[in-house]
This record gives sequence, structure tokens and C-alpha cells, in this order.
Amino acid sequence: MLPPVILWNENRLSLLDQRRLPCSVEFLECERAVDVAEAIETLAVRGAPAIGIAAAFGVALEAGKGRAAASRAIERLAVTRPTAVNLFWALRRVEARLRRLPADAPDSALFSAVLDEAFAIQREDLEGNRALGRSGAKLLPDECTVMTHCNAGALATGGHGTALGVIRSARDAGKKVRVFACETRPLLQGARLTVWELMRDGFDVTLLCDNMAGSLMKSRRIDAVIVGADRIAANGDTANKIGTYSHAVLAKHFGIPFYVAAPLSTFDASIPSGEAIPIEERAADEVRKLPGGGMLPAEYSIWNPAFDVTDASLISAIITEKGAIFPPFAEGIASFLSE
Amino acid sequence: MLPPVILWNENRLSLLDQRRLPCSVEFLECERAVDVAEAIETLAVRGAPAIGIAAAFGVALEAGKGRAAASRAIERLAVTRPTAVNLFWALRRVEARLRRLPADAPDSALFSAVLDEAFAIQREDLEGNRALGRSGAKLLPDECTVMTHCNAGALATGGHGTALGVIRSARDAGKKVRVFACETRPLLQGARLTVWELMRDGFDVTLLCDNMAGSLMKSRRIDAVIVGADRIAANGDTANKIGTYSHAVLAKHFGIPFYVAAPLSTFDASIPSGEAIPIEERAADEVRKLPGGGMLPAEYSIWNPAFDVTDASLISAIITEKGAIFPPFAEGIASFLSE
Repeated sequence: MLPPVILWNENRLSLLDQRRLPCSVEFLECERAVDVAEAIETLAVRGAPAIGIAAAFGVALEAGKGRAAASRAIERLAVTRPTAVNLFWALRRVEARLRRLPADAPDSALFSAVLDEAFAIQREDLEGNRALGRSGAKLLPDECTVMTHCNAGALATGGHGTALGVIRSARDAGKKVRVFACETRPLLQGARLTVWELMRDGFDVTLLCDNMAGSLMKSRRIDAVIVGADRIAANGDTANKIGTYSHAVLAKHFGIPFYVAAPLSTFDASIPSGEAIPIEERAADEVRKLPGGGMLPAEYSIWNPAFDVTDASLISAIITEKGAIFPPFAEGIASFLSE
Repeated sequence: MLPPVILWNENRLSLLDQRRLPCSVEFLECERAVDVAEAIETLAVRGAPAIGIAAAFGVALEAGKGRAAASRAIERLAVTRPTAVNLFWALRRVEARLRRLPADAPDSALFSAVLDEAFAIQREDLEGNRALGRSGAKLLPDECTVMTHCNAGALATGGHGTALGVIRSARDAGKKVRVFACETRPLLQGARLTVWELMRDGFDVTLLCDNMAGSLMKSRRIDAVIVGADRIAANGDTANKIGTYSHAVLAKHFGIPFYVAAPLSTFDASIPSGEAIPIEERAADEVRKLPGGGMLPAEYSIWNPAFDVTDASLISAIITEKGAIFPPFAEGIASFLSE
């Protein structure tokens, strides 16, 4: 069993500190929205859906102090990370909920409403992932080996996971799934989080470095690549953790199905294609830290984009809680979002 | 200026300890062949041509003790690393040189002969790389951006380098070359060695993680990918540091020329295709070490191949000291090797 990732507990938000995994299981106690904002910025909590959920609870920490305090919390949380759209989607939901209250609603009502909305976002995400997992599981053979990248698991969501949710649901459906997890430089979410999460859940999982993916696809039968997403444009172009795009090109080269698993909250219909998705560049020090200790010299020039955009043309299907969308994506996405 | 990488000095072999770079510049003093063997196994000295040179000097450390001692040294050095063929090529040269001596040659003559052969191998490698560099430089535009992987530089050879030799020669010819260096997990030879080596030489070099290569090729103009090689089969299939193959597939996807730069000592005409090249798997602990300290749990299952094989069909040219070979490679390789 996994420890709780995002837990509201006696008016505080307790976050599993994912920076410390797998070496130690520690929780970060957040009493103010700024604590949650910093937890998002420093990746104590990460994964597009989990960021949205944590942000909603972050607003709840301030909403009892009035509308102005809630608005400030929303503003602060909105500038934490630019790429994952679930963050803005969740904050908009909370904002809309506040707007629906009477202008003279007491602060306690603001607090209750925001907290209720945050719980709803968390619960719906978990339920959505279970539905998403069931529809994705149908795409996998009864015995299969899949490769994944970064962590799109229970740790990144309200539970069950997106990419890892598909894998979990496949097992629940009686399928036998073996997993290869790419370590995901520079912060090793695959090595630190995905392998840990899947091992705790009893899966057969093998870690590899990102640059071994081509060799893996050539030397063994890989039945599918499954990844999560941070933002999906109206045409299906998908921003996800850096490295995803390279895996998609490799999968195409080998004729391996490449699946994106994401809830509808990850879609951004306002953006026609991936070119308009803002890509966060993070600090060079993330790349500079050497295994076992030490740092590369400060004068090194380092490029450290946190995400890349995979062209829709490289994606075999996008798996959502309403079912899988197949190419051409634009129509299916528009239809799913309008229902 | 770079410090000397492999330096024979008063009957000892001094090796620049590449495990400590770039944090500190230290030398490993080898007095016996076994010291050199261990330096090769632990990657204190690495890079296919450099391994061959170091091994030849390693035999010299024992040849003064007689033919039996020299043979034992050759046997010990031959089992250090399986993939780079230059090691076996250099040891065969030393062996042949010993065989050409009269049976009753004194030990001092054995020593002189082996040492002379080792110096010749080192000198020829440096001269060869300069010639290789000149022929490779012609393939680059006057202003260009190239991507490289691992370290195929002066640190990996008798000097000048193979892949980096092409880059150096291009600059010598008045061309302007900007370099993107992939860090090369798990041991970060790109980050630790290539960036350091090129910065010392005044190049404009930017470090990226291996999984950013696809995003780099999509977002900026990359004029060529240039890598070294550890063994090239008769048909042009090329074993090189793990990750090379993925880069080659990406380069093909983007229509970017993919060049392999290697001396003829890296070719193995006895092997028809890459399938027969033995690929070294190294200890999982290389992947397990976490940046900044700490280790992934010991129970993790980890796949850690040190090399991969790039199909000849993905290679635009193989650049040697006798000139560049273009597809189809088999004929050109056979002709260059038979001259």
C-alpha cells in the first residue's frame, strides 16, 4: 500500500514529500497556501493532476480568511508552474465555486465551499483514473511488456494513476503486465517514484536509463509505451515530462503503440497545437548534481527544459475517463470536452 | 590545454583518473599490468582507442620480466572489457611484435620492443585522429551546431579525439562550431568529460540530458550528430556508448546527418554485423547512485547495458583516418582495411 499522497487532516494539508522518496517516507505539513505553492515549485508534490488537487486544497487553507485572501492564494498558486494545465483548471473550478456563493456569504461558508470543491476534485480524479484505467487496459494484450516514463502513477494523481492506472487496471482485469520504467533525468521521477510505487504494488518492474529505450525496443518485445500528460492541445499534441517525445519517435520507428493516458482536466481546448504550450525551463543545478555527491562546475552552460511536446502524429491513442480517443484526434477531443 | 591522459614516465604509466573529472585532476600511477587492467575495468581510463593504448603500455610494464610475464599481462588485460575492439587489436600488435623477436632475445629487448610498439600505437592514434578530423571537418557547414554523445575526445584517444577531433579540425579549418553534449547516463562521460574537455579548449558547448535530444533536434537547427565507436562490424553496424542508437533513430527522423568517427583500429572485419558484437552489461550500482548522494534500494531490478549497436542504415558516413566511408559501407570498409 502507498502512503496518502495528498491528505486533508484537521485543517492542514499533509503532502507526501516526493523529493525524499524512495530513501525516506516523510510528510510536509502545509498550513498556508504559500506552503503548498512552495511544495509545488520544489516538486515535493508533482504530477499534473496532483498539482491541481494540492492547489485546490491550498486555496482552502486561506478561504476561511475571506474572499481577498482566497484570491491572493489563487494568484500565488497560479504562478508556481506553467506547463501542467490541471493547475489552472483546478484553480478555475475553485474560483467559480466561490463566485456562485452570495456576496455576503460568511468566511466559514467560503472555507466550506472551497474545501468541498477540493475534495470533489480529488475524488473525481481518482474515479476518473479508474475509468481511464479500464478503457486503457483493453488496449493491452493479455501478456505484455510496457515501457513508461517519469511517474504518472498514484503519486501523481488523486490515486490509481493515469499511465500506471492503465497498468493497474490491466492487472485487475487478469492481464499479466511487465513494466520497464525509464529513470527520467534529471530528477529521476521514474527511478525514485515509479519503480518504488510499482514494487510496493507487487509489479515486475525493471529500471533503465532514458538513453537505453531504443536499445530496449530493439532487443525485447515491447508491446506498448504508456505515458501521462501535463497538457494536451486541441489537436492532440501532448506536453509531458522531457524525454517523452524521444520515446514517441522511437516507438514510431519500431511500430510500437504509443499511448497517452490523461484525464479530461489535462486537455486545453484553448490551445490549437503544441507549439503554444509554455515549456518550463528549470534551474541548471538539477542537472549539475553528480551521482554520489559533488557538482559539475558552475560555469557549465546547461539546457534544462522540464517538458517536451509530442506531436499528435506520433500518438496511437489518448486514453481518458470517457474512453480512448484515436487519430485524428481533434474531433474526438472536441466531442469529449463538449459532452 | 588538457593534462596528459596516458603518459609513460620513468618506467611507470601515469593515467589521468577520469573518474574524478571534472571535480579534480588526479593521476593514477600504474607499476604493474594489473594496475592498468583495474584502471580499464573501473573506467579510470576509457574510450576505445585509449583503452588500446593503455593496454599496450600495460604489457610494457611486465615485458622486462620475460615472455611468460608478458603473456600473462596480455591475458589479464584482454579480459577487462569485452566491447571495444581496439583493446584486442592493440594487444595483438604487441603480441606480434614479441613474436618477431628471436626466441633467445633478452628480457630487456622484449621490454624495449613492447614499449616501442606502445609508443607507436599512441603516436599513430594521434596522427590518425588528426587525419580523421580533417576528413570529417569537410562534412560540416562553415557555421554549424553539432550534437555529440559520451566522450570521443582527446581523453578517449591518443589525443585530438575522434568525434571531438572532427570538431577540433573543423575549427582549425576556420569553421564555427557550436556543440551540444549529451550527459550520457549512467556515468555521465558527456557531462564530466566532453563538456570539460571542450570548455578547456574554448568551445561553445552546452550540456543536456540524454532524453532532451529529441526536443533539441525539433526546436533548434542541429546540422550533424557526431559520435565515436567501440567496434564497427564489416557491414558498418556500430557499437558505441549506450544511447547512441536512440540518437541515430532521432537523427534519421529529423533528416540530420549521423556521423561515426573512428580509426581503422575500431573496425572488426571478423564480425559480419552488429548482432555478433558482445555488449558489456555493467553493475546496477552505476545506475543506483542518486545525484547529491544516497542510493536507490538494493532490491530494484536494473538493466545496465554499457553499449548499444546502431544499424549501418542509420549512419550517414563513417569517418576514418583514410577518409570518410559512405553507404553502402561493406565495400568501403573492406577496401580501407585491405589497403
